[in-house]
Amino acid sequence: MVLSAGPARPKVVVIGAGFGGLAAVRGLAGASVDLTVIDQRNHHVFQPLLYQVATAALSPADVASPIRSILCRQANARVVLDRVVAIDRSRRTVALDGGRSLPYDWLVVATGAQHSYFGRDEWAGHAPGLKTIEDATAVRSRILLALERAETEEDKARRVALLTFVVIGGGPTGVELAGAIAELAHRSVSRDFRSITPHCSRIILLNLAPRLLESFPEELSAAALRDLENLGVEVRLSTPVEAIGNDWVIAGGRTIPAHTVIWAAGVAASPAASWLGVQADQAGRVMVDAHLHPDNDPYVFVIGDTAHCKGADGRPLPGIAPVAKRQGRHAAQAIRQLLNGGSEPAFRYRHFGNLATIGRSHAVIDFGWWKVRGFVAWLLWSTAHVFFLVDFRSRLQVGMKLAWNYLTYARHARLITGDVRANQAPGLAAPFQGESHVSATR
Amino acid sequence: MVLSAGPARPKVVVIGAGFGGLAAVRGLAGASVDLTVIDQRNHHVFQPLLYQVATAALSPADVASPIRSILCRQANARVVLDRVVAIDRSRRTVALDGGRSLPYDWLVVATGAQHSYFGRDEWAGHAPGLKTIEDATAVRSRILLALERAETEEDKARRVALLTFVVIGGGPTGVELAGAIAELAHRSVSRDFRSITPHCSRIILLNLAPRLLESFPEELSAAALRDLENLGVEVRLSTPVEAIGNDWVIAGGRTIPAHTVIWAAGVAASPAASWLGVQADQAGRVMVDAHLHPDNDPYVFVIGDTAHCKGADGRPLPGIAPVAKRQGRHAAQAIRQLLNGGSEPAFRYRHFGNLATIGRSHAVIDFGWWKVRGFVAWLLWSTAHVFFLVDFRSRLQVGMKLAWNYLTYARHARLITGDVRANQAPGLAAPFQGESHVSATR
Repeated sequence: MVLSAGPARPKVVVIGAGFGGLAAVRGLAGASVDLTVIDQRNHHVFQPLLYQVATAALSPADVASPIRSILCRQANARVVLDRVVAIDRSRRTVALDGGRSLPYDWLVVATGAQHSYFGRDEWAGHAPGLKTIEDATAVRSRILLALERAETEEDKARRVALLTFVVIGGGPTGVELAGAIAELAHRSVSRDFRSITPHCSRIILLNLAPRLLESFPEELSAAALRDLENLGVEVRLSTPVEAIGNDWVIAGGRTIPAHTVIWAAGVAASPAASWLGVQADQAGRVMVDAHLHPDNDPYVFVIGDTAHCKGADGRPLPGIAPVAKRQGRHAAQAIRQLLNGGSEPAFRYRHFGNLATIGRSHAVIDFGWWKVRGFVAWLLWSTAHVFFLVDFRSRLQVGMKLAWNYLTYARHARLITGDVRANQAPGLAAPFQGESHVSATR
Repeated sequence: MVLSAGPARPKVVVIGAGFGGLAAVRGLAGASVDLTVIDQRNHHVFQPLLYQVATAALSPADVASPIRSILCRQANARVVLDRVVAIDRSRRTVALDGGRSLPYDWLVVATGAQHSYFGRDEWAGHAPGLKTIEDATAVRSRILLALERAETEEDKARRVALLTFVVIGGGPTGVELAGAIAELAHRSVSRDFRSITPHCSRIILLNLAPRLLESFPEELSAAALRDLENLGVEVRLSTPVEAIGNDWVIAGGRTIPAHTVIWAAGVAASPAASWLGVQADQAGRVMVDAHLHPDNDPYVFVIGDTAHCKGADGRPLPGIAPVAKRQGRHAAQAIRQLLNGGSEPAFRYRHFGNLATIGRSHAVIDFGWWKVRGFVAWLLWSTAHVFFLVDFRSRLQVGMKLAWNYLTYARHARLITGDVRANQAPGLAAPFQGESHVSATR
């Protein structure tokens, strides 16, 4: 690698340019360090809006920005597009897929989460998840192709399966996705088809827990349930998924013929624990101490979805963007203080609230001191999400698109791309060949 | 297929929802016919702006619209997503890949063109073309990955190859693409990289003919050449391509080490001639008479890039959108007159002008009576292209994006997607596996 000359400055390596990694990098802007950000993709993804790409309301570039352009003004940061294969904590190096090895003085591990099928990895092919841009466009193609094939399918049973959409998991992603699919299938395409009426589409949300949005207060869970049912979503609570196959799901002992099944249930941390050779919890997250260090290693910070970090109540902090960002800023602050000869502060997190949106113009928000739902919550949700997009152009355009979609019910990004053959054998295996449904490093 | 009941109306089948096919369908709006549009993709592509997707200025959904939503208000039209495999002119049926067969009273064949490598199909893997959304995102990934890999490449010769971009073909597509790549590589990414300076990128345009834009007057060809050279593009005229391999091109007897090679040279018509069992010209286009019928078959119209149709000067009409649209409208008009017991008019085409754009704020336009170049031409070009986008939302958004990009030099859709591995063996074969570089039916 061609390195710029100059006095040797401490090297900080950040793995992953998700919310946590970017917050760490930005927190070190102007500091006397050489920063390297490694990501296996060239873009940061704004994951909370990924379901809008999967349901054709936004384009990939609306919710993803090139990491290089996000950091182009930060002179002490360089971006490396590569995959991490190992970390050597004794020699303090990170080994990359290309064979190179990067030394570090401090390492920030922010590699995010990937889907977990609870040991049933064979389900991945039948029920893609929603973590990357490729996931989102694959889900989008799958939903749109199911409608296309239903339009020309003569067999009634197969048509019913094609028009049944199952979302597994009743957390924020599952709730948002189910609501958006209901709108897409019931409203946005209502004029487009001739043989099928989109109203015969069924959207089923399967949830293992007895209520939706378990991390929210019960009254908001109940509100979310009502809102989803008003949108025409069948919500089945306390319903474990037992098997997933081609065109069917078995859940709670019943078989649901369904062509499109989407996984929004389990996440597992990236392989960071094995890279670091440290203990992980059941979900694969690295156990960290009050300073976000694993295994008392003062040179390594593990943050975001990769870390198991206990909150004030003794429970692990949730895998959400605000936690990751706060931890990224904390790691940067700690490194700054250590550079100045100070000592590390302990990490503290104050939770501001949970929010989830249900279709157009409904949302639930829990600030703790204020629980809000309905249109006001939806406005707050929209504003917050657009505000937190990383670049100004995206904010402007996404804000306009959401407003336009709101006014017109339109979903303009309804593109089926990839090697699509309309009438191939069931299962639609081909369009998804080579698609990766997991992302080890965001 | 579930067909709506009603009195039997004449059946019109249109193959291909490009400019020609859509014009034929729209020209029959309100007519007493049952229209079926068959396309192997679910979206119409505005091909003149595809190079803007390939160079990351626009998103796929900006230049593509779902065929269903374009036609949603036209009650006599239905859309079928499928691939045509055969046409039986004696039984008047179209056979689809799914095994079904559609009867027609009139057939409009508007299947467009695909890339032609002049018999050297092995070049397709090294030099993708630009006809579909998948082509455009594949080219975009290829250009961006080359810059990424150059950033970390230690070998100087390989770095030079990674930073050399070769466009083959000096027609409008090649000229527009070369100009846009020069801007992307020289300007838009100038702040993003640390090890390479984007100014060391070379963009080479190879043209077989002795001047660019052969269909334009000579003075505009000369203007285009000057504009491209001002943008830093090396234009090599009268330079035949002799071979293309992994990371190199041999042209005019010289070897150019180049990682990224893009094909904008030859097009060939779709397999329509063999479906119809009729004579084709050297480029595979179906020979049609003054009524756009092949082989004197009064029930078949062949239009757009698929047809070899002589103009007033005895030369075949060029493969451009205005010709295809005019022919589509003509086919619709002819069917209307035949329905009313009238006789068919002959097809006449009046050419309004040629236009091409060269980078930001330069273009050349030839109206015949008025030749214009520079900023005024660019403004006309932009306005015309945005105006001709099929839907209003696209017009608004693309207009805004082009204005924004013009003001800021930004190219925000710089996403590398697909199964990308940053440091794999040379040739980048994997990300393009399964990508189709030809489109038989647009």
